[in-house]
Amino acid sequence: MNTAKPTFPLNAWYAAAYDVEVVGKLLARTICNQKVVMFRKTDGSVAMLEDACWHRLMPLSLGHLQGDEVTCGYHGLVYNAQGRCVHMPSQETLNPSACVRSFPVLERHRFVWMWPGDPTKADPALIPDMHWNDDAEWAGDGKMIHVKCDYRLVVDNLMDLTHETFVHGSSIGNRAVAEAPFVATHGDRSATVTRWMENIDAPPFWAGQIKEARGYQGKVDRWQIIRFEAPCTVNIDVGVAEAGTGAPPKGGSAGDRSKGVNGFVLNTITPETNDTCHYFWAFARNYRVTEQRLTHQLREGVASIFREDEHVLEAQQIAIQERPNHPFYNLNIDAGSMWARRLVDGLIAKEQPAHPVIPVRLAA
Amino acid sequence: MNTAKPTFPLNAWYAAAYDVEVVGKLLARTICNQKVVMFRKTDGSVAMLEDACWHRLMPLSLGHLQGDEVTCGYHGLVYNAQGRCVHMPSQETLNPSACVRSFPVLERHRFVWMWPGDPTKADPALIPDMHWNDDAEWAGDGKMIHVKCDYRLVVDNLMDLTHETFVHGSSIGNRAVAEAPFVATHGDRSATVTRWMENIDAPPFWAGQIKEARGYQGKVDRWQIIRFEAPCTVNIDVGVAEAGTGAPPKGGSAGDRSKGVNGFVLNTITPETNDTCHYFWAFARNYRVTEQRLTHQLREGVASIFREDEHVLEAQQIAIQERPNHPFYNLNIDAGSMWARRLVDGLIAKEQPAHPVIPVRLAA
Amino acid sequence: MNTAKPTFPLNAWYAAAYDVEVVGKLLARTICNQKVVMFRKTDGSVAMLEDACWHRLMPLSLGHLQGDEVTCGYHGLVYNAQGRCVHMPSQETLNPSACVRSFPVLERHRFVWMWPGDPTKADPALIPDMHWNDDAEWAGDGKMIHVKCDYRLVVDNLMDLTHETFVHGSSIGNRAVAEAPFVATHGDRSATVTRWMENIDAPPFWAGQIKEARGYQGKVDRWQIIRFEAPCTVNIDVGVAEAGTGAPPKGGSAGDRSKGVNGFVLNTITPETNDTCHYFWAFARNYRVTEQRLTHQLREGVASIFREDEHVLEAQQIAIQERPNHPFYNLNIDAGSMWARRLVDGLIAKEQPAHPVIPVRLAA
Repeated sequence: MNTAKPTFPLNAWYAAAYDVEVVGKLLARTICNQKVVMFRKTDGSVAMLEDACWHRLMPLSLGHLQGDEVTCGYHGLVYNAQGRCVHMPSQETLNPSACVRSFPVLERHRFVWMWPGDPTKADPALIPDMHWNDDAEWAGDGKMIHVKCDYRLVVDNLMDLTHETFVHGSSIGNRAVAEAPFVATHGDRSATVTRWMENIDAPPFWAGQIKEARGYQGKVDRWQIIRFEAPCTVNIDVGVAEAGTGAPPKGGSAGDRSKGVNGFVLNTITPETNDTCHYFWAFARNYRVTEQRLTHQLREGVASIFREDEHVLEAQQIAIQERPNHPFYNLNIDAGSMWARRLVDGLIAKEQPAHPVIPVRLAA
Repeated sequence: MNTAKPTFPLNAWYAAAYDVEVVGKLLARTICNQKVVMFRKTDGSVAMLEDACWHRLMPLSLGHLQGDEVTCGYHGLVYNAQGRCVHMPSQETLNPSACVRSFPVLERHRFVWMWPGDPTKADPALIPDMHWNDDAEWAGDGKMIHVKCDYRLVVDNLMDLTHETFVHGSSIGNRAVAEAPFVATHGDRSATVTRWMENIDAPPFWAGQIKEARGYQGKVDRWQIIRFEAPCTVNIDVGVAEAGTGAPPKGGSAGDRSKGVNGFVLNTITPETNDTCHYFWAFARNYRVTEQRLTHQLREGVASIFREDEHVLEAQQIAIQERPNHPFYNLNIDAGSMWARRLVDGLIAKEQPAHPVIPVRLAA
Repeated sequence: MNTAKPTFPLNAWYAAAYDVEVVGKLLARTICNQKVVMFRKTDGSVAMLEDACWHRLMPLSLGHLQGDEVTCGYHGLVYNAQGRCVHMPSQETLNPSACVRSFPVLERHRFVWMWPGDPTKADPALIPDMHWNDDAEWAGDGKMIHVKCDYRLVVDNLMDLTHETFVHGSSIGNRAVAEAPFVATHGDRSATVTRWMENIDAPPFWAGQIKEARGYQGKVDRWQIIRFEAPCTVNIDVGVAEAGTGAPPKGGSAGDRSKGVNGFVLNTITPETNDTCHYFWAFARNYRVTEQRLTHQLREGVASIFREDEHVLEAQQIAIQERPNHPFYNLNIDAGSMWARRLVDGLIAKEQPAHPVIPVRLAA
């Protein structure tokens, strides 16, 4: 059992699944150290219960779903979608305490979100904005991958794109990004790293995109705007526009990107345990939105880049576990991730342990 | 290393092997957290020693058996069947302390029984009665399976046959058993759950057995009498008889089962470690006793049913280990297993730690 | 993480690799609980660094070597061969603390030696004498094997060749060795076990060697002189000579081995972790030194014998870990290993923890 101090707040929405994963079948997953079982109800909404029968802890996910009720596969206790036991074998009277925990759950922007903390605080307005994943003006698709590292290492990774140069040298990285200046800012629940590279040669990927979409070849203004929303969502606004057509914001007013192509790398990283995570991502674009083939091509291209990160992140996790008290040293490039960590630490600190979740040790 | 509190008494007989497993070769097994090596001596009886050389802990089971003596495979120390070192390399004088522990061991009812506790208390009369496994009026056979769970979960499982309905729905279970009333009683070392279902349609299995054996078709009186003997033996008396021919006991006198067919499901579950067990079982019957083919067929049929239990028990064990302080809630159907647990707890509580066994961590 | 008390001194030279293993590429290895990365520099010497980037602990061995500089594969920090960071991404000023530990390293007798302790004490004169491995008058070759046991169990094994009789019964062992008398002596950093068997029939292996090399058949004087040098080197002087030609030393003077054949079994066993080791060995001989085929044949012959030891040592390690506080009992044959253990304990005891090494748990 993992008895380390909390690495994530409980009062937050976490992506538990892609919408298409949840159908009329029992789906088991561990979210924030909590084993849960989810299923789509007959009315189309999603229910999520603790995955352990009240009676003898048998995982309910090994039982049977009939309508909106789950029957335990050992002794046949039946639970409704709110986790209340509605049938016990060989007895008429039901123990009034017989229930399993149910979790607030909502669908938005193609993800199923769950709230592991105090249900009375589960405000839908706190679900991070990832609307690009579900908007007619944008096209895209993504995947979920399982990474054997603390979710915060993924956030660190995304908050500093310098690593593109060294980890993704064979695809999207080049020295220019590593050396470009950036600005880091933050709010109460968010931190932003903005990097504008004006009047440069477009890197091969973007040179191809803007030529195909806008028929343009030549110098570009390029941007990378990384926005972290606590505790674990990072949306990255990326793109290029014809140089000098006003894409960068000026003074207080937004820029004009009409001569450009724009993408969003959407990332939300859900702790599975303290040392592992479910990483949900998608890439959405605002050009050639009806071309399924391009959607497919971009999704697979991003997937192969993320596999390179996976390798690095898992190696880093092992090194950290071997040196439990080793401090992290920070460079200038870590400004964004330092703010992200600070916001997460703040959310954790202000939580009273009113709804402790028992950390689980996943069986091998 | 497992440092949890004891889950079983030491002063008890535990099945260590089926008789046929132990021949003139070294057989290693872990029983009650104790690694042992056993072998059949030249006089036909069984010897059992601690499986670690006195000198440098080399497992004796990796050495050689010659006659009734075991030679360590590292430096050649020789032990007799009582565990006394009788030869050391390159020296004439033997260290008088040089011995390994030997365990009381007896064969009965086709099992080799060992006593891990105080040898002076190893009373053969305490071996549980499983005579049906070795009786000319009964025919049957069984197996040993290894289950990755606390042996007490297997006892729980056997003390409540309600689970047949849900775990074994495709074979022997049906709603009738789950809903039939039962009576639970107990003694000093035993607990019994009795369920009579009178004047019912026989379930398919028993309908076939009574028709083939007695030529009878029609309503039956059916019984399931589950008898637990502490700490880990459960013998289940099962069968059907022609309805109304007096099978159920009346007043103080036993019933007349002469118009029926009777089987015994014999189970004795030996802790390997606190979290794993060796499960010995057999099915014996009092009809068509000379038909080897039926013996074979019934043994394989029971084996496939027990594999379903194995799946459930191992899932339950994982869930329990993830929630070490979680209480068990009990239903009416748990009356039998509650008594069984109470009797085991009583045996553990009254043991003085005079002969502690060092818990082992089995290497992966 | 392994928090057990030290099992080896830090102020000592340990073989880290065979010379041929280290080329112009990054080689990762764990030595004395320390993860290191080594590489051959452009000047031909070997550099060794701690295998974790100062910034975020990424293993440097997953980065890139260019000339004598290592670039971290995550964010591109660059280290020179002394472990000093000489480049950071996106910043001009380097943090003066930015460095990783480098280790004293020397090549001698075909091994790369590293000193995990206080660098100011790394006296080259303390490298154990294994010159037979790199001497024109001797021919031989060897291997490195990984053994899942405390390195001291390998030392124990080598200090008492009685085990040959039982472990290597099918190859080099026979009862004669187990029963021959021996003399054990010791110095400040060394312990020696000497066994002379005069005027005996040569065992098959040596009978063949002396016949082919010297044309001699008949009685021999045979010797086994095992010399331990703390903390983990054991060189064994073995051979036979024509009986009565003066091979055994007499009074204070060395014997005359000119009528014999002589080999050295060279062994140095480097702790990887407290429970695992890298075992470097070679077999060198002073006859038929130009015959490559014989070198090959002898190396493979020894390798197959050592695999038998590996099996025994790993079984013993598991047994010891299961009984953490169990004492070792000693026999007369353990005189040599008792002295070796005492010398190692002395070296450990006199070390101040001035340069503690954080024990690592190797990831599965």
